[in-house]
Amino acid sequence: MKWEQLTAEQQHEVNRQLDTIRRGVADIVPEAALKQKLIQFVVTGEPLKVKLGLDPSAPDIHIGHTVVLHKLRQFQELGHEVQLIIGDFTGRIGDPTGKSETRKQLSEEDVKRNAETYQKQIYKVLDAHKTKFYYNSQWLGAMNFADVLQLAGKLTVARMLERDDFAKRYAGGQPIHIHEFFYPLMQGYDSVALHTDIELGGTDQTFNILMGRTLQNAYDSGEGDGQVAILMPLLEGLDGVQKMSKSLGNYIGIDEAPNEIFGKTMSIPDELMLKYYELTTSISNEELAGLRQGLEDGSVHPRDAKVRLAKQYVAMYHGQEAADEAEQHFVTVFQKRSLPEQIDEVTLAADQLEAGTISVFKLLTALGLQASGGEARRSVAQGAVKLNERKITDPNEQLQPQTGDIIQVGKRKFAKIVMQ
Amino acid sequence: MKWEQLTAEQQHEVNRQLDTIRRGVADIVPEAALKQKLIQFVVTGEPLKVKLGLDPSAPDIHIGHTVVLHKLRQFQELGHEVQLIIGDFTGRIGDPTGKSETRKQLSEEDVKRNAETYQKQIYKVLDAHKTKFYYNSQWLGAMNFADVLQLAGKLTVARMLERDDFAKRYAGGQPIHIHEFFYPLMQGYDSVALHTDIELGGTDQTFNILMGRTLQNAYDSGEGDGQVAILMPLLEGLDGVQKMSKSLGNYIGIDEAPNEIFGKTMSIPDELMLKYYELTTSISNEELAGLRQGLEDGSVHPRDAKVRLAKQYVAMYHGQEAADEAEQHFVTVFQKRSLPEQIDEVTLAADQLEAGTISVFKLLTALGLQASGGEARRSVAQGAVKLNERKITDPNEQLQPQTGDIIQVGKRKFAKIVMQ
Repeated sequence: MKWEQLTAEQQHEVNRQLDTIRRGVADIVPEAALKQKLIQFVVTGEPLKVKLGLDPSAPDIHIGHTVVLHKLRQFQELGHEVQLIIGDFTGRIGDPTGKSETRKQLSEEDVKRNAETYQKQIYKVLDAHKTKFYYNSQWLGAMNFADVLQLAGKLTVARMLERDDFAKRYAGGQPIHIHEFFYPLMQGYDSVALHTDIELGGTDQTFNILMGRTLQNAYDSGEGDGQVAILMPLLEGLDGVQKMSKSLGNYIGIDEAPNEIFGKTMSIPDELMLKYYELTTSISNEELAGLRQGLEDGSVHPRDAKVRLAKQYVAMYHGQEAADEAEQHFVTVFQKRSLPEQIDEVTLAADQLEAGTISVFKLLTALGLQASGGEARRSVAQGAVKLNERKITDPNEQLQPQTGDIIQVGKRKFAKIVMQ
Repeated sequence: MKWEQLTAEQQHEVNRQLDTIRRGVADIVPEAALKQKLIQFVVTGEPLKVKLGLDPSAPDIHIGHTVVLHKLRQFQELGHEVQLIIGDFTGRIGDPTGKSETRKQLSEEDVKRNAETYQKQIYKVLDAHKTKFYYNSQWLGAMNFADVLQLAGKLTVARMLERDDFAKRYAGGQPIHIHEFFYPLMQGYDSVALHTDIELGGTDQTFNILMGRTLQNAYDSGEGDGQVAILMPLLEGLDGVQKMSKSLGNYIGIDEAPNEIFGKTMSIPDELMLKYYELTTSISNEELAGLRQGLEDGSVHPRDAKVRLAKQYVAMYHGQEAADEAEQHFVTVFQKRSLPEQIDEVTLAADQLEAGTISVFKLLTALGLQASGGEARRSVAQGAVKLNERKITDPNEQLQPQTGDIIQVGKRKFAKIVMQ
């Protein structure tokens, strides 16, 4: 079906979908194929199959991961169907050379538990009724040696060595084991097995996702053109510089406590706020444009916009009530008081706590606000110590520190806690 | 067990075996491992497993192939066991890209028929009672994707790209499909599956055979050191220059007619004769030394040595009686008559015959001895045409030309036929 053969209404719908899909994406490869698939959709009403692969070894989702989830949700709202693939086959094999930490072998129970965690978290963004879950062991586990050779025959060594990390390692004389070639091949084959129309991923997944397109066309099921890659930008973390990731500690986990999510969101650099809105919320294009305008002309204060973002996150992952409470907590603690504009952040490691708590005098020394436990006890006795502006009277009081808590000694010493 | 712990008798036996094994080989890699395996053998009496892989697509054996077969026979005579692997798994997969003529997909019947041909031919050299036949589909066909990844994880891409032909193709920008990496891996895995001690092959198989050693050590079955590669020189064909091969037409097929084998053997260049003796007959080291001496000091005429070689071939592949007859035929036709010392060879293609025959007058023109059929008929009528010194009287007589046949027109025109 060609564009010219569509009714005006159908053309309008295709354009509407394209506009929504294009929002915030880094790249669509090839865009013409996406349009053609949408034409097909408006004519037949057959939902497009939109795929996302999930690493079964790391089920904790943070806001960075939700970039693709929100794009998937948009597809669902446009009438399409989401395919979530748990890469359990790869996870259960692990790394044959035993050298890669990130390819630790998972048991069947690990995979199941991680998949359940995924589902619980993911359905906070996605519509469960329009989402199909798959385990790729279903088809990859059924392949024999001959099938694998068929798969391997679809690609050349030179093409595979074009992948950035392979190219660098090969050029640098670092070993690439032959089985590593199969991770992109397997991911690509998932799309063959599921007749995927569109695959989503971060820009760092470009090679692997285009592999799916290549393989679909190589297996040539006669269904026309291979899948389209929709590549999302990588979201910078709280530091505003590096990709949000758990290992860098610059993340907002969607399963974190409401006050944690709220507090961390308030620490996002102002200049990234619109990007967070665009990529990780369900804000409409119109609202987004209004917000951008307001921030530019000064009619919206960045802090208010950030509060709204923080409330949206908490509401999405913990419910509206929790969002209201978190806002209240924040306002009480951080705004209705006379604290210095800048307070130094001090990191507190989880293992400095016992069962999540720590006594006041220990906390004061741990944060470096007091030189010794004795000094700390004296300060408390003098009524000089406050936690979030509440005066502490018992040096042995057990506190549950959270990121954003502010502890104060006398009039000059402040520390803002960052939990790790 | 160490060398010093052996009895003098055992040491002598190891040395005797080493001497026999070393004869005519191009390389043994690593030789120390071979010695160690022989020590193990003389101590335990457990035969070494000596492997040869066979291509299931080309079952016609020529003298060039018998180089490895004779080495295997020596191993059998030394008390060891031969493993012949029919590579039916590879043959039945064919080439996944469909591009390689040499990797045509074979049916189960093809494979079976070819294997039977192999057995019939090979047991003319090998002792059937000390030979085990295997089909590698038995273990390769049972491997699933996870097993294949385990296998692929044993080797790096860089190491694989060291193989000569891969290196050249990669450097030259010619495509190498990823499945091609699996041919050496599969051959190597055969040795893992069969606990092979020693693998034989031509020097062109060095990379693939050492792969078996690498893989055995990588799978580390705890049986000690991996297999030893025994690499045989490539035998030059009748042209004395290129490797004997069917496609070059410079071969002696062991299933050819006795007179063909005899005649072709007589056309081997003198300087290659000792190499043929050494590599493709069961001559003892002592006899070989005597023959070398005789040829050097002139006490043995090269032609007589070649007749002996030709008889050995015919005897080996068609029996002693056939050998005697072929010698008689040769003597009658080529020696007891007054033919010029040098007769030009003229090549005759098989497709110039009909059902293997050709009429005399057509043969004369095909060989260029006569300008036309009419001229040829007249020469026959004049009694001027002879085939192997037999006068031809009927120009329509159907002949079955064989390599070495000499056809004569008048007193001056001679041609020696070379069939192709």
